[in-house]
Amino acid sequence: MTQLTPNSSNSITVRLKMPHPSSYLANVIDAIGTAEGVLSAATLVTKNKGYVEWDITADAASADHAQAIVAAIQNLSETEVLSVLDCTFELHRQGKISVESKHPIENKDQLSMAYTPGVGRVCSAIAEDPAKVFEYTIKSHTVAVISDGSAVLGLGDIGPKAAIPVMEGKAMIFKAFAGLDAFPICLDTKDVEEIIKTVQYLAPVFGGINLEDISAPRCFEIEDRLKELLDIPVMHDDQHGTAVVTLAALLNALKIVKKKPEDLKVVFTGVGAAGVACTKILLQAGVKNIIGCDRSGAIYRGRKGLNDTKIAYAELTNPHDEQGTIQEVIKGADVFVGLSGPGTVSLEDIKNMATQPIVFAMANPVPEIPPELAGPHVAVMATGRSDYPNQINNALAYPGIFKGALNCKAQKITEKMKMAAAQAIADLISPEELNPDYIIPSVFDPRVVPAVAAAVEQAATQPE
Amino acid sequence: MTQLTPNSSNSITVRLKMPHPSSYLANVIDAIGTAEGVLSAATLVTKNKGYVEWDITADAASADHAQAIVAAIQNLSETEVLSVLDCTFELHRQGKISVESKHPIENKDQLSMAYTPGVGRVCSAIAEDPAKVFEYTIKSHTVAVISDGSAVLGLGDIGPKAAIPVMEGKAMIFKAFAGLDAFPICLDTKDVEEIIKTVQYLAPVFGGINLEDISAPRCFEIEDRLKELLDIPVMHDDQHGTAVVTLAALLNALKIVKKKPEDLKVVFTGVGAAGVACTKILLQAGVKNIIGCDRSGAIYRGRKGLNDTKIAYAELTNPHDEQGTIQEVIKGADVFVGLSGPGTVSLEDIKNMATQPIVFAMANPVPEIPPELAGPHVAVMATGRSDYPNQINNALAYPGIFKGALNCKAQKITEKMKMAAAQAIADLISPEELNPDYIIPSVFDPRVVPAVAAAVEQAATQPE
Repeated sequence: MTQLTPNSSNSITVRLKMPHPSSYLANVIDAIGTAEGVLSAATLVTKNKGYVEWDITADAASADHAQAIVAAIQNLSETEVLSVLDCTFELHRQGKISVESKHPIENKDQLSMAYTPGVGRVCSAIAEDPAKVFEYTIKSHTVAVISDGSAVLGLGDIGPKAAIPVMEGKAMIFKAFAGLDAFPICLDTKDVEEIIKTVQYLAPVFGGINLEDISAPRCFEIEDRLKELLDIPVMHDDQHGTAVVTLAALLNALKIVKKKPEDLKVVFTGVGAAGVACTKILLQAGVKNIIGCDRSGAIYRGRKGLNDTKIAYAELTNPHDEQGTIQEVIKGADVFVGLSGPGTVSLEDIKNMATQPIVFAMANPVPEIPPELAGPHVAVMATGRSDYPNQINNALAYPGIFKGALNCKAQKITEKMKMAAAQAIADLISPEELNPDYIIPSVFDPRVVPAVAAAVEQAATQPE
Repeated sequence: MTQLTPNSSNSITVRLKMPHPSSYLANVIDAIGTAEGVLSAATLVTKNKGYVEWDITADAASADHAQAIVAAIQNLSETEVLSVLDCTFELHRQGKISVESKHPIENKDQLSMAYTPGVGRVCSAIAEDPAKVFEYTIKSHTVAVISDGSAVLGLGDIGPKAAIPVMEGKAMIFKAFAGLDAFPICLDTKDVEEIIKTVQYLAPVFGGINLEDISAPRCFEIEDRLKELLDIPVMHDDQHGTAVVTLAALLNALKIVKKKPEDLKVVFTGVGAAGVACTKILLQAGVKNIIGCDRSGAIYRGRKGLNDTKIAYAELTNPHDEQGTIQEVIKGADVFVGLSGPGTVSLEDIKNMATQPIVFAMANPVPEIPPELAGPHVAVMATGRSDYPNQINNALAYPGIFKGALNCKAQKITEKMKMAAAQAIADLISPEELNPDYIIPSVFDPRVVPAVAAAVEQAATQPE
């Protein structure tokens, strides 16, 4: 797998001034190609006697690669680089979301209905019957996306301010995919008790709480306690969004290899927030033999130096108390689930798995093992990346899960609701469509959110 | 002053089914008029053989009055009331604001720029240089409107859920008047320490904190402490918004009566959040003799049973230690500022004031004394209502104050900035325009926010 696939996340727009004859533009395009950039747009900005200005947009593979492309253009004689814009940074300028009024306030009549004195009657109605808060405020369709910035993407503990762009992006996804209103809340504390209290205090205006990018093991206690304290759904997406989509992918992969959950040996690398939740939902789905590995190898009952989370994990998993490195325990495994980092497993390890192995190498941006390498030796390969088949993307789950939960005013997101969401995602691929490169729908498949929401709503009516 | 002025805040839309001939519609319109409703719209919904359906919208003076109007229509023979909608409640259905994306997410390229992997580079840039949070997130133009629901409008302690419609309305006003994005945060705690910590924790994503409808005396400590703790502007609008606009109105009223601040005797009723802040800004503006009254009469140094806030208030005011009821101390006063409730002063009291008295009767919705009663006996009369001249409305102040403070990334809203805002509002009325019925601009005057913002920005450059 090359690390140098140019893509829009590293695109730049270069403003160039050059003499008239179009051969100069051709030279620029040649130079971008030679530098391995991918041209995506060219727009004439100014046409003057003697010279022209063009905006040229090109995808690069990294920020360094973008600079190399610019340098290649600068080397051209008679072509002047006036400015270079990083398209991703430009998209983020002043943020990516806004708060809008649903009604104008342009005259006294409008103001007297939206604000005093009219608003007072609505406030009184809610004070008399608190259930009306779902009818006359934004609560019924508004989700808080809450992070402390302690485990942001692959970047780690970058703090609440640096986490804002991710939470804004999540709000955009909630809107684009589920029509929900979401607002980013980035907390300037990492203390478990303080986070719990803060979320509890700010809950009244929200219909759901999406916890995001909070590091393990704090995320487990924060989510568990908030679920007990609040009467609105709380979900830590890094755990359960990932778990739901992983289960969906596995359900369809098993159809291809014709194996049953109860017969599987599943090996995990990475037992953080996502690893623990994926393990639990797979157990729920009937998988009996799951072995989780951390940097020290297999987690088993009685291993020395385990923290509380891993002691609990050992209790749930590894029924045969297998010990040893990932290289040892992966032998004979039917499924490998990677939630760790690149290089965790080798081709040799994959070859040591059972027949028709299923490999979900979900580390982002670089998978545990490159699909180009493992692909030919496995029955089904999935990653977390959008540029390979079978992307296990939690955006398939959380918009529909919250949509369904809010639709029916569910007070909790139960195990049954998550299982139903996974089944609904899996079921979108018909038997005719199902194949090793298509076990999971695209996040842009418009059927996903309605199907997940409907399944979640239906499951919400069942006892927990 | 009649309590029965029909207005849009109590408007209803009635769907009616009636026979064809237009005389039936005429009867409906007659009935509304006879019931003292004010027709504001009539729309044909369905035309069928034999009958028609109309939507008829009428203003009422109260919810009871609206019911009386409906009853009057129901009394008409052959006219059937199909439904009655309360227009203010309909406007509030599902809330009044939404969170919108500034960019579409319709394909992989857009997603990879707004979310992973592109967003990661923006997060890293902010982690390296936290000042960039103002450049690449919503922080630079986003205000939190924060309340605990303890002192909402004239409704008192109705709690955080019932307060949401007011905070949403405030967010609408921020958008409509200043182009700022504001989000309502209604806190499920009334504990001073917990509120302070919560606001501190959720501050990273916001550029400013508008505290709202928090009861005195807690609001003073909460605001003071947060101003110390945070590096973004914090303002309790009930205090300072009201104070700024009151000062603006007074500055112009003094031009009419040709009196100077230092020569005035000013009497207040109500020394809650707004009363204390108005008193302080008037002192700042050079007024020497202010006497505040609560239910027990004048506040003076050494009065028994004063709480800490009032002890501090007594230290700042009442230089001649006047004692007695409002009826006693209002004698000879040049200015009366009412921030209490209806009936606090009588016409007799107004007649006992100095020559050319100024009366700001700002209790809402019912002023301390009706303008119809006091008006003929005073030089300048102002209220908090939009249906009389000279509305002292804090929406004249806070959108521009926050706009100015955010424009220049001010870390605090200083006394100088508030004074400058008041002066800017007052200065919008030219000497030619100034008259007893026009001392303050309308909230819909498009010059207000730019003028206030510019004055605040300018004042922000001055030492505190």
